[in-house]
Amino acid sequence: MKGLYTALMCSFDESGNINEKGLREIVRQNIDVQQVDGLYVNGSTGENFLISKEQKKQIFDIVKNEAGDDVKLIAQVGALNLDEAVELAKYATELGYNAISAVTPFYYKFDFDEIKDYYNTILDSVDNNLIIYSIPALTGVNMNLEQFGELFKNDKVIGVKFTALDFFLLERIRHAYPDKLIYSGFDEMLLSASVLNVDGAIGSTFNVNGQRARQIFELAQKGQIDEARDVQKATNDLIAEILDNGLYPTIKEILKHQGIDAGYCRKPMKSLNSEGVKKAKEIAEKHLKF
Amino acid sequence: MKGLYTALMCSFDESGNINEKGLREIVRQNIDVQQVDGLYVNGSTGENFLISKEQKKQIFDIVKNEAGDDVKLIAQVGALNLDEAVELAKYATELGYNAISAVTPFYYKFDFDEIKDYYNTILDSVDNNLIIYSIPALTGVNMNLEQFGELFKNDKVIGVKFTALDFFLLERIRHAYPDKLIYSGFDEMLLSASVLNVDGAIGSTFNVNGQRARQIFELAQKGQIDEARDVQKATNDLIAEILDNGLYPTIKEILKHQGIDAGYCRKPMKSLNSEGVKKAKEIAEKHLKF
Amino acid sequence: MKGLYTALMCSFDESGNINEKGLREIVRQNIDVQQVDGLYVNGSTGENFLISKEQKKQIFDIVKNEAGDDVKLIAQVGALNLDEAVELAKYATELGYNAISAVTPFYYKFDFDEIKDYYNTILDSVDNNLIIYSIPALTGVNMNLEQFGELFKNDKVIGVKFTALDFFLLERIRHAYPDKLIYSGFDEMLLSASVLNVDGAIGSTFNVNGQRARQIFELAQKGQIDEARDVQKATNDLIAEILDNGLYPTIKEILKHQGIDAGYCRKPMKSLNSEGVKKAKEIAEKHLKF
Amino acid sequence: MKGLYTALMCSFDESGNINEKGLREIVRQNIDVQQVDGLYVNGSTGENFLISKEQKKQIFDIVKNEAGDDVKLIAQVGALNLDEAVELAKYATELGYNAISAVTPFYYKFDFDEIKDYYNTILDSVDNNLIIYSIPALTGVNMNLEQFGELFKNDKVIGVKFTALDFFLLERIRHAYPDKLIYSGFDEMLLSASVLNVDGAIGSTFNVNGQRARQIFELAQKGQIDEARDVQKATNDLIAEILDNGLYPTIKEILKHQGIDAGYCRKPMKSLNSEGVKKAKEIAEKHLKF
Repeated sequence: MKGLYTALMCSFDESGNINEKGLREIVRQNIDVQQVDGLYVNGSTGENFLISKEQKKQIFDIVKNEAGDDVKLIAQVGALNLDEAVELAKYATELGYNAISAVTPFYYKFDFDEIKDYYNTILDSVDNNLIIYSIPALTGVNMNLEQFGELFKNDKVIGVKFTALDFFLLERIRHAYPDKLIYSGFDEMLLSASVLNVDGAIGSTFNVNGQRARQIFELAQKGQIDEARDVQKATNDLIAEILDNGLYPTIKEILKHQGIDAGYCRKPMKSLNSEGVKKAKEIAEKHLKF
Repeated sequence: MKGLYTALMCSFDESGNINEKGLREIVRQNIDVQQVDGLYVNGSTGENFLISKEQKKQIFDIVKNEAGDDVKLIAQVGALNLDEAVELAKYATELGYNAISAVTPFYYKFDFDEIKDYYNTILDSVDNNLIIYSIPALTGVNMNLEQFGELFKNDKVIGVKFTALDFFLLERIRHAYPDKLIYSGFDEMLLSASVLNVDGAIGSTFNVNGQRARQIFELAQKGQIDEARDVQKATNDLIAEILDNGLYPTIKEILKHQGIDAGYCRKPMKSLNSEGVKKAKEIAEKHLKF
Repeated sequence: MKGLYTALMCSFDESGNINEKGLREIVRQNIDVQQVDGLYVNGSTGENFLISKEQKKQIFDIVKNEAGDDVKLIAQVGALNLDEAVELAKYATELGYNAISAVTPFYYKFDFDEIKDYYNTILDSVDNNLIIYSIPALTGVNMNLEQFGELFKNDKVIGVKFTALDFFLLERIRHAYPDKLIYSGFDEMLLSASVLNVDGAIGSTFNVNGQRARQIFELAQKGQIDEARDVQKATNDLIAEILDNGLYPTIKEILKHQGIDAGYCRKPMKSLNSEGVKKAKEIAEKHLKF
Repeated sequence: MKGLYTALMCSFDESGNINEKGLREIVRQNIDVQQVDGLYVNGSTGENFLISKEQKKQIFDIVKNEAGDDVKLIAQVGALNLDEAVELAKYATELGYNAISAVTPFYYKFDFDEIKDYYNTILDSVDNNLIIYSIPALTGVNMNLEQFGELFKNDKVIGVKFTALDFFLLERIRHAYPDKLIYSGFDEMLLSASVLNVDGAIGSTFNVNGQRARQIFELAQKGQIDEARDVQKATNDLIAEILDNGLYPTIKEILKHQGIDAGYCRKPMKSLNSEGVKKAKEIAEKHLKF
């Protein structure tokens, strides 16, 4: 399960319905062009928290159908409605997803016992492995080393998508749990995470910039730090402009510019105005021509 | 629409299904015993963000069926899935709910234009009025006076459930928008909000302590501040112990102690252990015998 | 020691030296025109944390000399350098200051034992009473009810300047420690604090708006809430414009407009440009003509 | 000015006076045993914000006298009292310190123009270069890339001590300002910072663990990442235990255990109790025997 996974974007039409053709194209683009090792499906980048349970299942279906066994597939099933999380975990497992993942529960201020119960409840329902999805900036949930260790006691908890700034904690988890999988979640800090021996990375910008991510990751492993840093720079020149123009809609516009039917973002996420669309194209031309 | 509204608890069985009998009893208790002016249905206190769309509808059905026109009913329909929010807004409106309410969208970092679009999208779909639900401690969304004013430009936005600590902002909204409804959302600060001339309050502890809330609110309006403060003290003695023992499960245990079939909390919310149950009863005996 | 205290501004010349004449005029203005019960000297408003120990002493001297026994005087002596805090505590006590006060120590993340030791060290050195200065927005230090109680065990700790948003905590302190003095620290929330039976208030805007503060405080005590709210509104109309134009420099410009030689702020605090000065005058004309 | 600088500890006696003999020993230990390239004097680690201006000068004197020209010396002169900052800047410059540094101003919420004015005021007074000291966790001041760029426009601002978690910002500063000096400020994240091509590091744990810091830094530059990571692991095993036992007092006890007269921390910082002292020795024995 090691390697580079795209946090998969989804294509929606203007009414917010799933655009199956577009989603299949995004899947293929990631497999064939970006050549990532796997897809992380229905994460934050997939606008998962803005869609219905039925749409989540539909996406799991389409992605598995399109990807087949070409790459590894991780199904993010975490939801505030724990019944839904369990149902999605079963659904994705039956479809053959290689692992599930679940965001730490948010909104309410759950204590650690509740968080642990959430994960164990999901895992008790399926014969599959789980990757914790830790993203404190969106959830407000900060777990410490001991708490990660407590969750890792469940053998089916095989790792963590670590989308957090605390690289001391990352290093501590790495050394305390060498057999667990750690995926770096901040594309713009991939080099700094790679040298801490993470097992892979999961990133939204991999939808358009997966090849550079692989270069950074592999160069870092080979100790070619100067080269890795150059690629990280090129990556961050891209990411800085994408962030400035609006993360998800800009990635979609870049995909469209590349001939992918990437569609729109779900409301209430903004779509780009004509100036933003123009800017997205400029970003693609400037940073993604090889 | 002025007055005191209970943020209605819901009764769930151990599997997390809605306990209709219990829910009806809680509704009656609030109407007949607590004698509140209305019910705020499917808010945070109703564990709304932990249940399915179908369950939300079922709760809207049961509550309207039980309450009839005895009291005013506000339907909280806000959801990260905007389609769901719209569907629930229509559903509750058709059922005859007197107003809808919607939490500010959370998780993703929406900018104000997106928040405004979210509210207007909901309102475009229904012939009903809306109350903004502002609770920064859970959503991370802080809106300023100008932004509230911008939302209030839509005539169907008739007010705000203000569950925030910034009483300067509360005072400014009050004076800038005298015709909009402001409901205080922190039961333990009701006196301090009441003297700022809020139009009412919406509170979770009203499920068990609604009568004292009315006393505080009405005494404040009559200028009987010393008496109001005494009742606020009795209220806060109660709330401090409830918070210490776990907010929602303790209110449920107190209701059970009063003969109401209040059931369990939805996972991943903890239920009380035997010691917590005992403590809840002691709290009820100590603070809720009149 | 009950009543309304001005958080005294200091007058500095353009080089940052104390303008004794101006400071005396500010003192007199507060005593004779604003008619406050006392002065809180060398608090945040006095730009205390931007000046030297010698300047702090000089200000203690001038203020005591000018005020004599006309009003009560509280000397804020808190400092990150605990030796300095002790020296200032002794100095102000010898000058006849009625009480000292000390901000919670900041910058470093002190634990509660260290905070307690800080207060007790100051108090062991002087025969005077102390008022805790709690202002979490500037210090990052949040103490809970038990921790206030722990500090209050020292009989010489007679109260707290409570400049915090948590009115639940304020209410809890009030009822748990009826014999301790609580001063409200947010002028724009004075009404909401007054009804919780605080013993007084300490405010920066009292330098120009002390009379309205007294009205709010006294009307609240008499239960004339509607009238109190009207005065709070007039006050907040003023404060909102002052904050928008820059808190301390605008108060100084208003004082200047009233014939007081209020001088400049210490660098790195900005002084107003000509537009800001004009705006300050307009604020004074609009909100401070009676 | 590149290289590894110890954030120098200071030795105080039990009354909080400077222990000159101890301070000289700490200086020598850092130069002779830890073999760092320079000393960062009167930073947070030096308890600078807890001592008087006179003590700061005394420390500048002693350190320069002891270190001579053996290593580079940076004088942290930042202070809320800008007159003091200027006086210290002149003093250290006259003593021959190779550069000055200044923490971003804190406590009051200064806007960027005020921060910029603060730095330029200090620099206008001396013929020396300055390193910005950015430590948002203690100051609350977060500057973005453009703001750093604005400060860097002053040619005398030659770099930044970057004690922040945002490695994206670090990477952006690195590439936008290749000629400015960036010093990593988190010892436990040195590897992740080093691969971003920082020019050096400034750390408190270098007082006892400077040799490992050099190994990490140099191995990273040579691309020997596996070896660097091993040393970072050994370092972090040490740092985790030091933090758990109390950062500054534990480093002092470790120094004492090594025969250095490192003295006590200034109040209100806690000193270790006998158990903490024992633990500090165990940490030294376990992690610092080579």
